[in-house]
Amino acid sequence: MRLSRRSEVDPFIVMDVMEAATRAEAEGRHIIHMEVGQPGTPAPKGARRALAQAMEAGSLGYTVALGLPELRTRIAALYGTRYGVDLDPARVIVTAGSSGAFLLAFTALFDAGDRVALGAPGYPSYRQILSALSLTPVDIRTRAEDRFQPTPDLLPDDVQGLIVASPANPSGTMLDRPALAALIDAAAARGAAFVSDEIYHGLEYDRPAVSALQITDDAYVINSFSKYFSMTGWRVGWMVVPEAHVRTVERLAQNMFICPPHASQVAALAAMDCEDELEANVAVYRRNRALMLEGLSEAGFTDLAPPDGAFYIYADVSGLTQDSRALAAEILDSAGVAVTPGLDFDKGRGHATLRFSYARSTEDIEEGLRRLHDFMTRRRVGG
Amino acid sequence: MRLSRRSEVDPFIVMDVMEAATRAEAEGRHIIHMEVGQPGTPAPKGARRALAQAMEAGSLGYTVALGLPELRTRIAALYGTRYGVDLDPARVIVTAGSSGAFLLAFTALFDAGDRVALGAPGYPSYRQILSALSLTPVDIRTRAEDRFQPTPDLLPDDVQGLIVASPANPSGTMLDRPALAALIDAAAARGAAFVSDEIYHGLEYDRPAVSALQITDDAYVINSFSKYFSMTGWRVGWMVVPEAHVRTVERLAQNMFICPPHASQVAALAAMDCEDELEANVAVYRRNRALMLEGLSEAGFTDLAPPDGAFYIYADVSGLTQDSRALAAEILDSAGVAVTPGLDFDKGRGHATLRFSYARSTEDIEEGLRRLHDFMTRRRVGG
Repeated sequence: MRLSRRSEVDPFIVMDVMEAATRAEAEGRHIIHMEVGQPGTPAPKGARRALAQAMEAGSLGYTVALGLPELRTRIAALYGTRYGVDLDPARVIVTAGSSGAFLLAFTALFDAGDRVALGAPGYPSYRQILSALSLTPVDIRTRAEDRFQPTPDLLPDDVQGLIVASPANPSGTMLDRPALAALIDAAAARGAAFVSDEIYHGLEYDRPAVSALQITDDAYVINSFSKYFSMTGWRVGWMVVPEAHVRTVERLAQNMFICPPHASQVAALAAMDCEDELEANVAVYRRNRALMLEGLSEAGFTDLAPPDGAFYIYADVSGLTQDSRALAAEILDSAGVAVTPGLDFDKGRGHATLRFSYARSTEDIEEGLRRLHDFMTRRRVGG
Repeated sequence: MRLSRRSEVDPFIVMDVMEAATRAEAEGRHIIHMEVGQPGTPAPKGARRALAQAMEAGSLGYTVALGLPELRTRIAALYGTRYGVDLDPARVIVTAGSSGAFLLAFTALFDAGDRVALGAPGYPSYRQILSALSLTPVDIRTRAEDRFQPTPDLLPDDVQGLIVASPANPSGTMLDRPALAALIDAAAARGAAFVSDEIYHGLEYDRPAVSALQITDDAYVINSFSKYFSMTGWRVGWMVVPEAHVRTVERLAQNMFICPPHASQVAALAAMDCEDELEANVAVYRRNRALMLEGLSEAGFTDLAPPDGAFYIYADVSGLTQDSRALAAEILDSAGVAVTPGLDFDKGRGHATLRFSYARSTEDIEEGLRRLHDFMTRRRVGG
C-alpha cells in the first residue's frame, strides 16, 4: 500500500542508545540513564489520590474539547502567581500533552508549504511534526555566544512562523526578556506567527523564565504537565492562544482529539496543588545540576552550554570526537552510562555534541559522574 | 495573528443542541439525552482497579510509542477470538483513541492535496481531520437501498484513499463480507489506501461485524476502547497496519504523540478481561435497540436505517420537515429530548434526517420514547 512522502520522518538516534541500554540491562549490566528526558518521579501523590477518587465517583467520559473548565481556570491563575499576568481562562486550551498542542497550533496557523523557523539545536519533534503536516522546517543555526538561541538577525524574511523554547532542549539555556521580546518583534515584522514552547518553565535555577505572555498576547504559548508536574506518561498539557483564535482551535480540537484524556485532566488539576512535592523535585534537580556542572567539568567535558533551566546539559565534545554517535556508544559500552548524541537536535553540528540529562535521582547522578570520570581518565591514558 | 485556511473546519451542529440541553438543565428541566455518542457506563471495574494499583506501584512515565507490548499482544489475540484471524502483535499500534489513529493514518498515507473518499452520511470528524491535514474529502452520496454504505460503482477513479465504517455512525448499518470485499477491491484497483473504521465492533445485534483483516492485510484497521469497552474519555484505541508500514507509523507516533496515555493503556489492558461487565452493557443496548425500533415507529418515525450495530438509529424525517435543526430544537424544547440533526453527518441531505442514540440506560430510553410519542401526537393534532 502507498505511503506518503510526508511520512518520511527521521529516526531518533537516541532510540539506538536506548535499545542498546535495554539490551545491556537484559544482560545483567547496571546502566545509569542520562539519556532520558523525563523525571524519575511519579505524578504527585495528591494527583493520584484525586484520580483514584474520581474513578469511584463518575464515569470519566468525554470532557468538552477545550478541557475541564476548572482546570482551565486553575491554569490561568498560574499565570498570575508565576508571572503576574492576568489571563482569561477562555484563552487556555487543555491539550493531549505539548505534542497535542503542537498539532493544534501548527494546523491552526500554517497551510501546506508554509515555512516555519526553529533554532538548531532544538527539540527534534518540532521539525518532524512540521514535516508530517506538509510544512517546511527552516533551521536557524544558533551561536554559542547567543546561548544557542535564535536571534532576530538570523530569522529569514520568508517564514510564516517561528518556534522558540526557553529553557531549551537540549541546551537548557534561556532567553531573557529583551531577547525574547526582540524575537517576538522580529516575527511580527515578518507576519510570522510566534510559538513559545515553555514546557520547562518551573525548572529554572538562577532566574525565573520569562513567558511570552508577559510581553504579548499575540503568541501561541505551549506548556505541559510532563516536566515540572512530573506527569510525562499522562499526556496532558496546555496552550494559550490569542482570544480571536479560541473558536478555531476549539473546532480543530473537537475533531482531531475530541478531548484530552479525562483521567489525566483530573490528576493534573490536583497536581497543581502539590507544590511541596513538586518543589522538592526541583530541589533534587538543582542539586543534580550543581553536581553535573562540577563533575562533567572534572571529567573533562568542559565546553558546556549555560544550563539555565530544564534538566539537560549540552556539551561540545569536538575536542574528543567528530562522531558523537560512536562516542555515546563507547560511553555506554565502556562506562555503563547512557547519553544522547547531539545528532537528533542538530543535524549540522550534532556530530560533535552530547546531551546529558540529570532528571533522575541524585544517587544515580553521583554514580554516573564517577563512571564518566573514570571513562575519560581511561580514554586519555589509553589514547 | 494569521490563521491557516485549513483551520476553517465546520462547527458541529450538535453542539448547539448540547448547549441548549445544558441550559435547559440549568433551568431545572429534565432532559433525556439521545444526542450523545458515548456509553453512560464507566470503564469496567477491573480496568479502574488495575489503574488504582498501577498508580501505587510505578511512575507511569512514557511508554514506547507503539504502546505497552502486553497490550499490543492482547489486542492481537482479540482478532483470533473475535474473527479467527491470526494477527502479529507487531502490526498493532496503540493510539490516543481512534482520533489519534486517524491522525497517524492520514499522515502516513496521504500527501497534501490528496483526495480521500468517504460515505455520506458519515462521522463528521473524518472530513474535518482530512481538511486540517490539507487533504480533500470526497463525499460519496450513499443510497438507502445500500444501507447508506458506499458501493464500488460510486467510488471515483481519482482518489488516493477510501474510509469505510461498519457498523457506521450515524446509520448503524453494516457491510457484509462480500460488500466489504468489493470495496477493498475497488480501492485497490484505484491504488487507493483502504481505511476501515471498526470502532463499533462488538456492538452488533443480529450478525457479527466483519473486519477488513478477515479479507486483506493491505488495509489500515482502526478501533478504540471508547465504545464496546466503555472508555471514551480515556482516549485509547488502536490501529492495525500492513507490516511494511509499522516503522513509518512508529516514527510518526514517536514525534506526533510520544506515546498514548500510559494510565489509559493500563486500564485498557485490564478492560479486555472484563467480558461479563462488557457483555452486560451490550445486553442493555440490545434491549434499548428493540425498544427504540418499536417506540420510534409507534411515535411516527417510520423511515429508519437498518440498525445492525453501534447504538444509533438514523431516521429520515423528510415527511415531517426539511429543517432537521429546527425539528431537533422543537423536540428538545417541547419534549425535553435531545436528538442530533443529520446535518453534521450529511451536508447534502441531513436537513431531513435525525440521529437517535440509545447508549444510555433503558429507563432513560423508555422515558424518552414516551416523550417522543406524546410530542408527535401533539404535533399531529396541533398541526
